[in-house]
Amino acid sequence: MRPIHRAAIIAVGSEMLTPSKVDTNSLFITEQLNLLGIEVTFKTIVGDDRAELEHVVRDAIARVDLLVCCGGLGPTDDDLTRPVVAGVMERPLIEDETIASRIRARFQGRGLEMPEINRRQAMVPTGGRVIPNPNGTAPGLWIEDGDRVVLLLPGPPRELKPMMATLAESPLRERAGGGMALVRRIIRITGRSESHVDEAMQPLYAEWSRAAVPMSATILASLGQIELHLTACCAARFDAEHALNAAVEQVKDVMGLHVYSTDGRAMEEVLGEMLAERKLWIAVAESCTGGLIASRLTDVPGSSRYVERGIVSYSNAAKTELLGVSKEMLMTHGAVSEPVAIAMAEGIRGRARTDIGVGVTGVAGPDGGTPEKPVGMVCIAAASVKETRVRTFRFVGGREMVKFQASQAALDMVRRMLLEAN
Amino acid sequence: MRPIHRAAIIAVGSEMLTPSKVDTNSLFITEQLNLLGIEVTFKTIVGDDRAELEHVVRDAIARVDLLVCCGGLGPTDDDLTRPVVAGVMERPLIEDETIASRIRARFQGRGLEMPEINRRQAMVPTGGRVIPNPNGTAPGLWIEDGDRVVLLLPGPPRELKPMMATLAESPLRERAGGGMALVRRIIRITGRSESHVDEAMQPLYAEWSRAAVPMSATILASLGQIELHLTACCAARFDAEHALNAAVEQVKDVMGLHVYSTDGRAMEEVLGEMLAERKLWIAVAESCTGGLIASRLTDVPGSSRYVERGIVSYSNAAKTELLGVSKEMLMTHGAVSEPVAIAMAEGIRGRARTDIGVGVTGVAGPDGGTPEKPVGMVCIAAASVKETRVRTFRFVGGREMVKFQASQAALDMVRRMLLEAN
Repeated sequence: MRPIHRAAIIAVGSEMLTPSKVDTNSLFITEQLNLLGIEVTFKTIVGDDRAELEHVVRDAIARVDLLVCCGGLGPTDDDLTRPVVAGVMERPLIEDETIASRIRARFQGRGLEMPEINRRQAMVPTGGRVIPNPNGTAPGLWIEDGDRVVLLLPGPPRELKPMMATLAESPLRERAGGGMALVRRIIRITGRSESHVDEAMQPLYAEWSRAAVPMSATILASLGQIELHLTACCAARFDAEHALNAAVEQVKDVMGLHVYSTDGRAMEEVLGEMLAERKLWIAVAESCTGGLIASRLTDVPGSSRYVERGIVSYSNAAKTELLGVSKEMLMTHGAVSEPVAIAMAEGIRGRARTDIGVGVTGVAGPDGGTPEKPVGMVCIAAASVKETRVRTFRFVGGREMVKFQASQAALDMVRRMLLEAN
Repeated sequence: MRPIHRAAIIAVGSEMLTPSKVDTNSLFITEQLNLLGIEVTFKTIVGDDRAELEHVVRDAIARVDLLVCCGGLGPTDDDLTRPVVAGVMERPLIEDETIASRIRARFQGRGLEMPEINRRQAMVPTGGRVIPNPNGTAPGLWIEDGDRVVLLLPGPPRELKPMMATLAESPLRERAGGGMALVRRIIRITGRSESHVDEAMQPLYAEWSRAAVPMSATILASLGQIELHLTACCAARFDAEHALNAAVEQVKDVMGLHVYSTDGRAMEEVLGEMLAERKLWIAVAESCTGGLIASRLTDVPGSSRYVERGIVSYSNAAKTELLGVSKEMLMTHGAVSEPVAIAMAEGIRGRARTDIGVGVTGVAGPDGGTPEKPVGMVCIAAASVKETRVRTFRFVGGREMVKFQASQAALDMVRRMLLEAN
């Protein structure tokens, strides 16, 4: 069979043709396909419209080796992907009793009866292979037509992603024909601006472009961090991985502790592993971040091994009662001040009897700013048995942006404190 | 001339076919077009590849009244939009001396000589109208072909947006056929599954499709909520608004208190406004949600008027010390139980002296589940001066999904308690 080289992605759903929703599933799919050396040659977004969908499916099938359709597999009238693809490929739909009973069981598990319309999700085009969906009712479908493959996946990212990852492991890998491997690494950096990172990286960019395995780099600024995407494309996956590993080390040499992740992990995962390894407990006292730091820390499975408690001390009364910040200090310095941040960090550390305490107080905005304490000003303190660190930041952007950047800086302050304590 | 009703958008650029970049220009273009009553029927993203681009342009021109191409107007070899569109439309390119001298002047203004390749940006397809670009070298192009319009715009958002806004003011407005307006409403519903909402809505769908101002509906399931997008298209914007207002009331009649938002606001904003209006204070005690409820509440500007404090009582010690949950109760019922949720809600309400107290305890997973208390089981309590409510939920999905659904259910429980107390 001819190996798969070229793919197209069709995202189905009228909501993605409105001004407020964008297709992001295709990014994950593209990543998985690129790792197998499969290139995405075009993407189309189409609404829940039978004629339009039929046209783009027919057109795409003729142009690529692999067509991935996402969305439109739900149980309602405007979910058209299954019947339209079956029609274009001339594969009549047949009800699959195994799928139907699985969907029925899913509803029963939640004490509900399966609505009649959900039976549509059990329909399979003749010759189609069913791809299990562990997180939803709509299974995926894999339909071959000569050398071509058409793949239907459900739209919700939490359903699509694990299914796509599983497919990339086995049937897609076999059909990809072991060609050129396109491998990427994402390096995450915090505490430095995009232009600063870009300038520091220039000599490396030049070196990489002339290397035996040439690598390209893209720099991407997002909230509270800079991402550096390194890409290598070469015949042997091993060579690409090897070259990228060396490049990652070079970046770490240049950027030092500002590099916090080289394997795609988020800050809270990196810090969580450090706390778990060192068998340390943490407690956080938050004012302007409003619980976001505790929430990010507890997003990580197993975080109950190191998160003891969190206090969201939004009112001054809460700061005094729960953290022991004195009324005098609040009067003298104001709630947003380094002494108060320190008192919060040390106060929660003492009361929770943890190894690490964190205190964050600031002006998240949009109101509440003054000339001396403008919106975006945040004081962050971290206390351990050995030391207490404190720093005042000035973040830009709206309320949620200030909250996120402050949470990132607080987690990073603890990360650096642990690293430098070694 | 026939008015423009249907549009397509083609975004050109190989970078948008990688796993890290997504086309966002089309969101702004869609918004501008929708306001003129022009519907976007599909969007395609294609790389800097002559054959692919030619295919999608040829295909799109045949299917819509207006084709907007963004990107690929730069001066380099891989900028292909101008020659490809000229080729498909059979309009030979001619150098426009006015554009060339404007580009030359732009370079001279920065003390540079115009590189020879920039002359490509002065090429105009025969009969094409030049759209000035105040923020860059590449002008836009407006090419008519009978009733059809093809519009070429540069890719950088800060160049494209002002150009698109200007076009929407005048030539597009005239061609849009005198203000058919396409108006949307987003209704958010919680506590019901997609299929249940869809089934309950069927009679309304049928009624709306036959109404004097016909309306269409799209249903969209996302985590912890169902969205119903209603769209009306009619000559007078006022009539569309009026019809949609009536439809929103019908949905509220059918779905009752499950409808929590009809104006695009999130749950935390809706509840926040209710608390602020009633001059009520809230405090939350969270275990498995780990601070997410407090963080969502404090995402809303002005939330310091009603959020008094939050406690993330991850350890049993924290539940006892900070909320007064007795050790006996924790021993007898276990941390994840309705009595503990109640004790948390009433405990924080008493200690924070607030009007409302919330208590949440559950198994977020992936570990820690037992046959009696599986992953996803969450007990939620809300206490006011008059009553305490409690309910046990079974959520599906991974850790972050369980956290979000639990936060949504907790905020909704308080919302309903306030509404039913009136």
